[in-house]
Amino acid sequence: MNTQDTIIALATPSGAGAIAVLRISGKEAFAVAEPFFKSVSGKVLSKQKSHTIHLGHIVENEKLLDEVLVSLFKGPNSYTGENVVEISCHGSPFIQQEILQLFLRNGCRMADAGEFTLRAFLNGKLDLSQAEAVADLIASDNEASHQIAMQQMRGGFSNEIKKLREELLNFASLIELELDFAEEDVEFADRSAFKELLNRIQLVLKRLIDSFAVGNVLKNGIPVAIVGEPNVGKSTLLNALLNEERAIVSDIAGTTRDTIEDELSIGGIGFRFIDTAGIRETKDVVESIGIKKTFEKIEQAQVVVYLIDSQKLAENRDTFKEIRIELEKIRNRFPQKPLVIIANKTDKVKSEVTDFISAELQEISADNEKTKHLLLAAKTGVGVEELKNILLNFVNTGALRNNETIITNSRHYDSLLKAMQEIDRVQDGMAAGISSDLLAIDIRQALYHFGEITGEITTDDLLGNIFANFCIGK
Amino acid sequence: MNTQDTIIALATPSGAGAIAVLRISGKEAFAVAEPFFKSVSGKVLSKQKSHTIHLGHIVENEKLLDEVLVSLFKGPNSYTGENVVEISCHGSPFIQQEILQLFLRNGCRMADAGEFTLRAFLNGKLDLSQAEAVADLIASDNEASHQIAMQQMRGGFSNEIKKLREELLNFASLIELELDFAEEDVEFADRSAFKELLNRIQLVLKRLIDSFAVGNVLKNGIPVAIVGEPNVGKSTLLNALLNEERAIVSDIAGTTRDTIEDELSIGGIGFRFIDTAGIRETKDVVESIGIKKTFEKIEQAQVVVYLIDSQKLAENRDTFKEIRIELEKIRNRFPQKPLVIIANKTDKVKSEVTDFISAELQEISADNEKTKHLLLAAKTGVGVEELKNILLNFVNTGALRNNETIITNSRHYDSLLKAMQEIDRVQDGMAAGISSDLLAIDIRQALYHFGEITGEITTDDLLGNIFANFCIGK
Repeated sequence: MNTQDTIIALATPSGAGAIAVLRISGKEAFAVAEPFFKSVSGKVLSKQKSHTIHLGHIVENEKLLDEVLVSLFKGPNSYTGENVVEISCHGSPFIQQEILQLFLRNGCRMADAGEFTLRAFLNGKLDLSQAEAVADLIASDNEASHQIAMQQMRGGFSNEIKKLREELLNFASLIELELDFAEEDVEFADRSAFKELLNRIQLVLKRLIDSFAVGNVLKNGIPVAIVGEPNVGKSTLLNALLNEERAIVSDIAGTTRDTIEDELSIGGIGFRFIDTAGIRETKDVVESIGIKKTFEKIEQAQVVVYLIDSQKLAENRDTFKEIRIELEKIRNRFPQKPLVIIANKTDKVKSEVTDFISAELQEISADNEKTKHLLLAAKTGVGVEELKNILLNFVNTGALRNNETIITNSRHYDSLLKAMQEIDRVQDGMAAGISSDLLAIDIRQALYHFGEITGEITTDDLLGNIFANFCIGK
Repeated sequence: MNTQDTIIALATPSGAGAIAVLRISGKEAFAVAEPFFKSVSGKVLSKQKSHTIHLGHIVENEKLLDEVLVSLFKGPNSYTGENVVEISCHGSPFIQQEILQLFLRNGCRMADAGEFTLRAFLNGKLDLSQAEAVADLIASDNEASHQIAMQQMRGGFSNEIKKLREELLNFASLIELELDFAEEDVEFADRSAFKELLNRIQLVLKRLIDSFAVGNVLKNGIPVAIVGEPNVGKSTLLNALLNEERAIVSDIAGTTRDTIEDELSIGGIGFRFIDTAGIRETKDVVESIGIKKTFEKIEQAQVVVYLIDSQKLAENRDTFKEIRIELEKIRNRFPQKPLVIIANKTDKVKSEVTDFISAELQEISADNEKTKHLLLAAKTGVGVEELKNILLNFVNTGALRNNETIITNSRHYDSLLKAMQEIDRVQDGMAAGISSDLLAIDIRQALYHFGEITGEITTDDLLGNIFANFCIGK
């Protein structure tokens, strides 16, 4: 890993836009940029102050490549902690490439994925979990994942870990010191204070570990299984939810158009809708396969939405029996899973029909507090707001309270689990009265796993893995 | 057209990247940004110097949206000539939209397409042809179109027009002054100097008008008709040309992948390859249609590339007779059009075959200096370099000499043609000895068309048309 050379990459999304930004970082960034930048005011780039912007031209052998703005950042007051030059050029892919190639020929190397952030980490501008949050932040596509990444980037979670690690390190040192005086049988480390610390650490670790399940769901969107036959109005319902929210994605041409039907942001929380055909119509040999598949999908989901076609019921109320059987099957199989029963197309039927449906659903829901029901007309929007509230309520009950630290990174989760094991082992050792030297080894192991999270302990492999997931230019 | 309010738009390409830039412009830009930007250093934004960068957070009602860099530009020293704030945020589409929406709710309006550049024009930062060049620059995808747009943006061509317009305006004023003294029969305007000016203007106009044909071709790519049967190796040839050049487009994911086979940049010049099936195999009723279509395509092209399958010739040399007939048809129909005859797959045949082909092609090419021929093996790359040189030579003979002004914009072309007509009319009038008042009218008309180009004369409609072609954010 060479961190002494000067790296360059396009920092803005690829494609055409009004402007594009190329970022150069390294000790020699100013020296690299200077020969090819002719300032309009005639100023020498390297003599300018940090955090200033300069209008000029990128020129190679008298050939004018573009009129640009150059922003200067002097290390350590830059993103990477090194000298940084940002070139704001016209946003044609051709110009971006011309300027990029110019600097690749003259003193720069193409940055690897995440290399700017890697350098920021190596230069102490960010700890490792904060660096990882940068990638999460860029990938975030809803309020919840954005807030989690933001909080992690600001160090909320790693500060806590760091503090605990320091306290633990302190005790480790004292206990190791005891080893030097082993024959004198002294106790530098106050055992009861140490036990208190271990308890505190355990509480924090447990909270963080538990938050992972929530965090993972929030980061990737809450899976919702929609059980419903074709034409029951599934896409109309999704569109109604979408329109209400003026979905963020719809403003951005060509981003996630093909998945928009299945992923929605409701009240800032991402939801992933999983379509299932239902389990009623499977009356032949493939029945068991059909039911199995639907059950599998419900299994993956955090919430089940069951759609009923009111219009069909108006034609034949007896079909409600089948619905009741199907609902019972789902309830029996997944008694703990939140279930929302929706009678759709209520705008198409008379009030006596909705009254009938309402009464039936009331009865079904009565004996299970995790079952909600509502009358809805996706076409006209009636009931959509209520559905949103129901879905958000399932999430908000305990999960997303303000500023609570939430773990979303499986690497962190893994290290936290391992740290927890070691802390448990230390406690067991203490209870069993094992010798200080053995205790010290277990504490060191716990410290190691703490250090993995914040990056005090790293290997090239680990860093390589983490930063390979970044985009180039970050 | 409201130019008093504050506008905002994403300036970087849409999609995810390391960073994205939002641009706010207007008298109130600082006042709009200030309440939502908390500087890390605690500085008040509006009190900072122009062309400085500030690290801080975008915060709405205590909710942290992102950590950003804010660049300040105080009017008139900005792109638009107004106060400008550029917000460099993390490049997640979600964050981009959150910040955009925040400012749309709080004092900003979404910028129309090209509105930043329109304001730059209205504030005198650019003339109209320079403003138009900005859009061309962003759209440029090869060396030639880039250089033309660059030169136009720097005012090379409009400066010349402006100077001529001023001289002409001078004479117009003098001639109009004569009208006030009509009864005294004075001549304030030196007629011979005026004639000399008209001649100079005519020369410049003619040069610019003539350059349009070249400019148009360079801007859109030089059309090359490839005449060749299926399997003659057309796509292998295009790929070979492409690989040689390490095509710019290939570095940029998902930009023009579907047209890459037909558009290549060779030596910085764009070429558009038009596939035609050839005219040999059309022996039935559809024969005439087939020939007509091929001829139409050749008509549109600037260069014809005729591909021969050497392997087929090796099997049966007699087929060369058909080739010869076909080539004669093309030559007869388009005697002036550059023709390159390529014997492909020469790596697949013995040297006696290539000798035979070479001799035949020599004979065919001998009597026409616009016909070139070469032996080529697209698979191994033999001859590809030579083909590139031949194609570039056709272009370079006169077309792209350094820094010659080239018109690419059909609006300019139109105005130049009209100005030319008016100048002709003035000259005719002078020769016929018409009165000064009639002369003055014609001169005013010529001045009008000059003014249209540089933007001294504009209408809202004209501006609307021009800037509607820009992207939003520029």
